Amino acid sequence: MWCVTVKHILIDTRLFQGKGWGLSMISDIELTKDGPIYLQIRDYIKQMILKGFMSRGQKLPSTRDLSQTLGVSRNTIILAYEYLEDEGFIEIVRGKGSFVSDINIDYPSLWKMDWNPRLTPYASLAVDLDIVKHEPKWKKGMISFKSIAPDDKLFDVEDFKRAFLNRFSLEGEKLLNYGYAQGYKPLIDYLLNYMQNKGVDIQDKSILITNGFTEGFNIILTSLSKPGDYILCENPTHNTALKIMKLYEQKIVGIPMDEDGINLEELEKGLREKPISMGFLIPSYHNPTGIVMSPDKRAKVLKTFAKHRIPIIEDGFNEELRYSGSHMSPLAALCGSGNSIIYIGSLSKVLFPGLRIGWILADKELISQLVSVKRSRDIHTSFLDQALLYEYLAAGNLDRYLKKARREYREKYDFAINCANMYIPSKRILGEGGLHIFVELAEKIDARQVLEECIKRNVIFMPGDIFYTDGKGLNTLRLGFARSSLQEIEKGFKIIGKVVEKFII
Amino acid sequence: MWCVTVKHILIDTRLFQGKGWGLSMISDIELTKDGPIYLQIRDYIKQMILKGFMSRGQKLPSTRDLSQTLGVSRNTIILAYEYLEDEGFIEIVRGKGSFVSDINIDYPSLWKMDWNPRLTPYASLAVDLDIVKHEPKWKKGMISFKSIAPDDKLFDVEDFKRAFLNRFSLEGEKLLNYGYAQGYKPLIDYLLNYMQNKGVDIQDKSILITNGFTEGFNIILTSLSKPGDYILCENPTHNTALKIMKLYEQKIVGIPMDEDGINLEELEKGLREKPISMGFLIPSYHNPTGIVMSPDKRAKVLKTFAKHRIPIIEDGFNEELRYSGSHMSPLAALCGSGNSIIYIGSLSKVLFPGLRIGWILADKELISQLVSVKRSRDIHTSFLDQALLYEYLAAGNLDRYLKKARREYREKYDFAINCANMYIPSKRILGEGGLHIFVELAEKIDARQVLEECIKRNVIFMPGDIFYTDGKGLNTLRLGFARSSLQEIEKGFKIIGKVVEKFII
Repeated sequence: MWCVTVKHILIDTRLFQGKGWGLSMISDIELTKDGPIYLQIRDYIKQMILKGFMSRGQKLPSTRDLSQTLGVSRNTIILAYEYLEDEGFIEIVRGKGSFVSDINIDYPSLWKMDWNPRLTPYASLAVDLDIVKHEPKWKKGMISFKSIAPDDKLFDVEDFKRAFLNRFSLEGEKLLNYGYAQGYKPLIDYLLNYMQNKGVDIQDKSILITNGFTEGFNIILTSLSKPGDYILCENPTHNTALKIMKLYEQKIVGIPMDEDGINLEELEKGLREKPISMGFLIPSYHNPTGIVMSPDKRAKVLKTFAKHRIPIIEDGFNEELRYSGSHMSPLAALCGSGNSIIYIGSLSKVLFPGLRIGWILADKELISQLVSVKRSRDIHTSFLDQALLYEYLAAGNLDRYLKKARREYREKYDFAINCANMYIPSKRILGEGGLHIFVELAEKIDARQVLEECIKRNVIFMPGDIFYTDGKGLNTLRLGFARSSLQEIEKGFKIIGKVVEKFII
Repeated sequence: MWCVTVKHILIDTRLFQGKGWGLSMISDIELTKDGPIYLQIRDYIKQMILKGFMSRGQKLPSTRDLSQTLGVSRNTIILAYEYLEDEGFIEIVRGKGSFVSDINIDYPSLWKMDWNPRLTPYASLAVDLDIVKHEPKWKKGMISFKSIAPDDKLFDVEDFKRAFLNRFSLEGEKLLNYGYAQGYKPLIDYLLNYMQNKGVDIQDKSILITNGFTEGFNIILTSLSKPGDYILCENPTHNTALKIMKLYEQKIVGIPMDEDGINLEELEKGLREKPISMGFLIPSYHNPTGIVMSPDKRAKVLKTFAKHRIPIIEDGFNEELRYSGSHMSPLAALCGSGNSIIYIGSLSKVLFPGLRIGWILADKELISQLVSVKRSRDIHTSFLDQALLYEYLAAGNLDRYLKKARREYREKYDFAINCANMYIPSKRILGEGGLHIFVELAEKIDARQVLEECIKRNVIFMPGDIFYTDGKGLNTLRLGFARSSLQEIEKGFKIIGKVVEKFII
């Protein structure tokens, strides 16, 4: 059998160099308020050793001398030295002192390579389609309508803190250790019930917890779509979804929208003429138009897909932001006990997008397969986050929060719609709720030129073309209002309107 | 312009059906202690409506009647009704009462489809290679050596709680909203400094935060490997890494290991004879053998790869679990200012695997590209978790914790090595630390048969063959000991030993 031996280094005490040298070097350290002092001293000495300023066998200052020089307690120095010994950087010899170990610091610089030619088409495309890298950036002082993230000032941080303290005291250790790929069981059960309350028949259905919509959509496409497959969606559609479809080399068939949702004739034509493998739809508060598909149209759309035996991926992204009107069933509810709808849920546009929690609700057997895909991607979603979200939801916080958030957002929404009508000359303004409205300018106006001019006037928004499947929408823009004050909305829309007017003449 | 209208439903008061009927139906509700009462009542009525037991225009019991029948306060009922109205399920008419809205509950059951034939080769392989689905499962009462997860009883939950309270009070709202794909800046800076203290030259390097090692390795392979590429690794190697390499259709060249790490002659041969695109190595506390590559060999391995101009993905997975001996530089440190090492770090084997936080340290330019790939996969890793880990680390908790954990694990490790030598007849026993040891039985003994017999005796472990690139290792097993008591280790190893003895005869 092969044995483990602890290698003790040889200390050549002839290398001892008096107390002055090492001491003056170490006393150069600048202690800050960030983190414990003994760790700062440890790290400083480590760097001295790693950079070759202190070499093998060199004696370190005595703990007494160093503590006096640095004006810290001797225990602090002792602790720092103990850690250094623990990690193999120094050796403490009783009665003799502490000595630098035999650390190989003579690192020859290895070759430099050019990683760029090695990037896969996938990675290159992910870079090319990364709007964060290519779209104009928000700068301090700008009024921004770019984002459709929620207003974090509305978050109930105290409720969330309470959820943490409750859940953590129940099972803190467990939550910090490995969990299960499918997700945290109480959260899965909660969400099944939640979906049932939207009218979904959950018999033979199951849920997989994902890192938000984005991972959910990735998991579905990587599991169910082959490169070159035809996928049908609304045109325009969610730009992240568009990006992911392109990354999976899908041929995208975009169907134009009416004011009550996707155009039925064009849908029928698309399904008939192309070998569509799946549909991707956003029936409620569609991104970017804000359109809500009418109940009548929902039923017809479902029937059309069913006739052609094509499944649908439904993005329930904004469903919770209903400000008024009657109950609107997701497609996943309208299909009854059918299993051809894969529903992706997320609360990210309502609360806590920073946690990155979403879910896929679908056929039980299918979910079981997707669980393996999820495990291969990242083992599971943070168990702590899942448990905190569960605790927060189970205490009834979501409902209370939504009441408050809807009131707040509805006020902004109404105001934004009014301001847009009043100040921005447009062909039409779309949006029935949610956290954004969508503006179509006169055909010939280039929204990117408008954007350029607006940025000079410290207003930024999202150009609409990035949402289109076919390079159109050059005269459109999306205005997210959740994080702007009413004053900012009025001021910003006025500026946009004035810029647009210039282009009309 | 198209306008938003709130559709008010027509209430046909002729449908009013007296107070008895609806009341008796709702009074069947069984109220539990889970969650607020008003939400339970809301959800119950929702289900009655969705299932068609209460239909359009039907009058709900008055809030007074229902509160008396259920024995809850009238405000509770009022609140429940308000939520139902808010969500469009009922309409409250002043002076008349509350009426069920026009909810389409006539969901025709759509077609049922068979999802299985649609699964991509990727998804099918992920299912096939999912050891959680195919390996024998732990059952209650068993002594388990299957896992190499840390012992969560060692976690400092109080320190973690303090980290939460500190960080959350500073920026709770912010942490719950969207963050950045690259990661939480203070954590990135902390980890850069941490890597520098391992001797890494961080000039022109950068860090991307990932959901653990698993996502990190996925991001690297999806960005830098093409199907059919040759990848070289130790044989045996980390089974999750093996799975991911197979999922990305890599041709795997496994190089046998000596007791101080990968065999140099075979490495040279592998690099010479095959068009290797990348290497994947685990230099410290290798999974599954527990071998630590010697400093001398590290330098030679680096030189060999550099000669052939082949980059290396280094898995630093267990580096923190050094129990004794001198400082061991990661390859990422030994390459100096070179950029051909991509280092994947994780603290998951030490603390908080449930949080799923890892990092990739690599060439700055490359990281900038990988950030876009990360964004396309899941936007970013939980900002709350990253901030909590940062707060925990910056307060010096990791160092204190490691001192404690190392002491505990070293005791178990020493004990496990001794027990294995004493009780399990073997060809050799490997392991220099970490949370597991590796046993090679006599050539002809089938570890899976041993496992089968052991399970009957309530002992379970990980058969070694799953770690091999070439179907070998049938006589090997990995014994994880972190979560077992000394008594369990002794008892379990004795049982394994006795089973092995049977197979020798």
